[in-house]
Amino acid sequence: MTATSMILTLACPDQPGIVSAVSGVLFEAGCNILDAQQFDDVETGRFFMRVVFARLVLARPEGEIAWIVGELAGRLGMTFTLRPASSVSRVMLLVSKFDHCLADLLYRSRTGELPMEVTAIVSNHGREHLASTDLTGIPFHHLPISTQSKIEQEARIWDLFQETSTDLVVLARYMQILSDGLSEKLAGRCINIHHSFLPGFKGAKPYHQAHERGVKLIGATAHYVTSDLDEGPIIEQDVERISHKDTPEDLIRKGRDIERRVLARAMRYHLEDRVVLNGKKTVVFST
Amino acid sequence: MTATSMILTLACPDQPGIVSAVSGVLFEAGCNILDAQQFDDVETGRFFMRVVFARLVLARPEGEIAWIVGELAGRLGMTFTLRPASSVSRVMLLVSKFDHCLADLLYRSRTGELPMEVTAIVSNHGREHLASTDLTGIPFHHLPISTQSKIEQEARIWDLFQETSTDLVVLARYMQILSDGLSEKLAGRCINIHHSFLPGFKGAKPYHQAHERGVKLIGATAHYVTSDLDEGPIIEQDVERISHKDTPEDLIRKGRDIERRVLARAMRYHLEDRVVLNGKKTVVFST
Amino acid sequence: MTATSMILTLACPDQPGIVSAVSGVLFEAGCNILDAQQFDDVETGRFFMRVVFARLVLARPEGEIAWIVGELAGRLGMTFTLRPASSVSRVMLLVSKFDHCLADLLYRSRTGELPMEVTAIVSNHGREHLASTDLTGIPFHHLPISTQSKIEQEARIWDLFQETSTDLVVLARYMQILSDGLSEKLAGRCINIHHSFLPGFKGAKPYHQAHERGVKLIGATAHYVTSDLDEGPIIEQDVERISHKDTPEDLIRKGRDIERRVLARAMRYHLEDRVVLNGKKTVVFST
Amino acid sequence: MTATSMILTLACPDQPGIVSAVSGVLFEAGCNILDAQQFDDVETGRFFMRVVFARLVLARPEGEIAWIVGELAGRLGMTFTLRPASSVSRVMLLVSKFDHCLADLLYRSRTGELPMEVTAIVSNHGREHLASTDLTGIPFHHLPISTQSKIEQEARIWDLFQETSTDLVVLARYMQILSDGLSEKLAGRCINIHHSFLPGFKGAKPYHQAHERGVKLIGATAHYVTSDLDEGPIIEQDVERISHKDTPEDLIRKGRDIERRVLARAMRYHLEDRVVLNGKKTVVFST
Repeated sequence: MTATSMILTLACPDQPGIVSAVSGVLFEAGCNILDAQQFDDVETGRFFMRVVFARLVLARPEGEIAWIVGELAGRLGMTFTLRPASSVSRVMLLVSKFDHCLADLLYRSRTGELPMEVTAIVSNHGREHLASTDLTGIPFHHLPISTQSKIEQEARIWDLFQETSTDLVVLARYMQILSDGLSEKLAGRCINIHHSFLPGFKGAKPYHQAHERGVKLIGATAHYVTSDLDEGPIIEQDVERISHKDTPEDLIRKGRDIERRVLARAMRYHLEDRVVLNGKKTVVFST
Repeated sequence: MTATSMILTLACPDQPGIVSAVSGVLFEAGCNILDAQQFDDVETGRFFMRVVFARLVLARPEGEIAWIVGELAGRLGMTFTLRPASSVSRVMLLVSKFDHCLADLLYRSRTGELPMEVTAIVSNHGREHLASTDLTGIPFHHLPISTQSKIEQEARIWDLFQETSTDLVVLARYMQILSDGLSEKLAGRCINIHHSFLPGFKGAKPYHQAHERGVKLIGATAHYVTSDLDEGPIIEQDVERISHKDTPEDLIRKGRDIERRVLARAMRYHLEDRVVLNGKKTVVFST
Repeated sequence: MTATSMILTLACPDQPGIVSAVSGVLFEAGCNILDAQQFDDVETGRFFMRVVFARLVLARPEGEIAWIVGELAGRLGMTFTLRPASSVSRVMLLVSKFDHCLADLLYRSRTGELPMEVTAIVSNHGREHLASTDLTGIPFHHLPISTQSKIEQEARIWDLFQETSTDLVVLARYMQILSDGLSEKLAGRCINIHHSFLPGFKGAKPYHQAHERGVKLIGATAHYVTSDLDEGPIIEQDVERISHKDTPEDLIRKGRDIERRVLARAMRYHLEDRVVLNGKKTVVFST
Repeated sequence: MTATSMILTLACPDQPGIVSAVSGVLFEAGCNILDAQQFDDVETGRFFMRVVFARLVLARPEGEIAWIVGELAGRLGMTFTLRPASSVSRVMLLVSKFDHCLADLLYRSRTGELPMEVTAIVSNHGREHLASTDLTGIPFHHLPISTQSKIEQEARIWDLFQETSTDLVVLARYMQILSDGLSEKLAGRCINIHHSFLPGFKGAKPYHQAHERGVKLIGATAHYVTSDLDEGPIIEQDVERISHKDTPEDLIRKGRDIERRVLARAMRYHLEDRVVLNGKKTVVFST
């Protein structure tokens, strides 16, 4: 991807000629399509597309391309997103005491593997719980929570979200349930990692539930947060084999590895504009 | 494994000295342990063991070894099974219209991959639904079922089970729910293949449920049948990756491959005496 | 996919405007793109595309669309394939004594899972080696082979290939090496299943090699046959976990399952025109 | 595992009565076997065993148990290891510029997931290359290397190994090849992570080789270092799916995740005394 490439995602009612129309206006604007994927949901009649294109030497300026795409979107009834491929998302990380996902994301952020800038780390526990994690250069906010203070705490999170121009909130093993209000404000902009292979073992202590049931594989699920707990659109899942010998503590240990890689993959998909919401489900354009 | 080797499984309350006692009596009886695995369930205080041993040249006869092991079992409060490793289980297969698991099991039986003899194939549909499967040499029983005839039909299955000296019943995509009565009679001797990654998507049409929910992996589960539907002890599970592009029909197709291999593995474990029931769970001694 | 949909694959030197040109002519011909995937190989400067499109009510006839696409191909320097999505490929299966892949492919063919018609089964061993496989309705040809007769035997295969209007030859565990001449004649039209995770363990007895080396996973590889043994373009691979306890015979047994599913997947990709050759590699457009 | 449990591993020529003899002396010494696994290599006639046992209230002291086991070992021709299960291995980490394995191991060490104490980090590059990794409290040694200085540098490593009473050296993406001499001194005490699914793609730049060949899965291999490059006994391997779209850089990124988890698993196996060498192969007793 060159520095002047852009990523377009769109969704609209299906009709003949969309690919032709989109590729036509991009060609006329001096752009070359580097990658294009589409999905035609025959159940809902919705059409989804992701296009990565390069602006060639004589291409129109970015702003003008946005205007041209916007004009086409109006005609076809499309919702769309368009941004330079090189832009970096601003991400706020919410954690509790478990820091394995946090440490993993910070590592991937520092090495440039995940194209993101961490705007803040928020925890309902003090910084001392993250003692073994290097937070150098990242604002840390201790926002404790109690039944009475939940509303105020969430208001602080929302303020921080706005003040820091954050694009995405990640619940990186944040053991609190967001209120319906905050969930709605962050719709499509908040990813949670759940430590089970949903829809199995919803709610608390999923590894203990899995042990109790005697399953032979455990998993993790990254999904968008909605007001419907553990029911948000799923972005990515994975599993690992276990046996009767594994204690709940073994499952927790093995699960950490699954959670890390599932969350990292889901974030990559989101940060590269590969995920488009389709009702209660997601379209994830493959890497 | 030589022709004169035997397989012993046992379960008892844990106490010091079990391994020593078991290996001691086998050694004195002229046997050499080829493989031994154990599991100590610290939650329940139960101890489980599987021993494969060879009868050496001067070993006691099989019947005498059974008597010696039985005597030890009495002392230690053990339940146990003991049989020649070369013995072949007698298996009855129950099917409906889908024959992919049936065809796969018959193939593995014919090639000797699964050490079993098929005593009967029972279907609630006519033989014509299995037209593309070669049933040569295997008794086929068409036992139709209706709400009124369910009791009689199950009585016929139970009679067949006894008449044919069947050891194991396999519901190889048999789309009927066994009654509580038959489930109890067949406890620990009846394996079902469920076309979902339990406990997700219990009940009917799991692939449609999975499609509806938008999961990113689908699976299958082989479990012992109990009167508690889809809650029996799990023997084996596996999954495969899917995407938003997969229709319910695609899931059904991909699921067939998962069902086949999960059921075949579970049967191998059962037929090799690798599975011991541990309450609502299983201990599966590894291959 | 409706009965009137078509599948187009193309490859050409990359240049701006290809997607626009292709989608444009299809739109003008009264067609609606159902799925489109592309790949831009920046190393070689080659562009690859697969388009599935539906002919709408007032669409041009199939022949005219072929003419239009051919005309575009001429202008852009494209090689292409175009066919009705409902067309069924004619497949010849070559086997030796192992019949697990054969039985699996026949099953998938009979149930319609793989869109193919088997034109002939050719074996260098007699039909009695396939006794447990139902070959009803499929011509079987026993073409024995010896060092002296190899040329004649291959000439017979080639004749059969032509007489039966076969599109694809599958070496379904055919333990003979095709000559350079036949390999070249069948270039891109002959798939082999190799029982190792290539490039590890080339040549004979790969499971024994794997056992000898002590690897922890074994695999299988489906690839196009070329005159360069075990070096043909890879279509699909998969692996399974093994342990130190597995004997070569266990590997052979476990490998059968891997071989079956790898070959079936590779054939699905080929039969659905998802595979395009890219030098010594393949582009496999995802399902 | 209680604080007073011990781990015994042994290897000897197979003969009847070993399990009985081992379990007998442990029982008489007041110990209870918590887990026992064995492997009987019929090809070589070697017998391998791993026993975890608890010292009960009236058990003999550790030193006396060691004496008893040693006496038995003499009689049966056994090599063996015996240590308290709570003992923590001392590990030296060798790295070059890539720090993903290092960061991962340090995290798992700090959280107690891997029972090890890091005695030193040695790199042929300066500390500045590990700027984003928190090395607090761990001695760092910059030991640069050149063709002329290789012997001296390795002598320094060996001195460090002895001075720090290190038990295990880990080449955590250390891009240097150890000399035959050092390899032999560290035999069975030095683990390397190779970034390919061996035996495929030996030597340099395996991800580029994999890209060039067009494989559909890439992998990583953890093995003991021997003087025979990339041929040491394999402890653990794993793979991940890739596609034609992945560039060598994508493979490197995906590979980092595989390398991390393969190395972490291999170290867990080694640190828990689950790995016993069997000629050019390993016996890995399962978790």
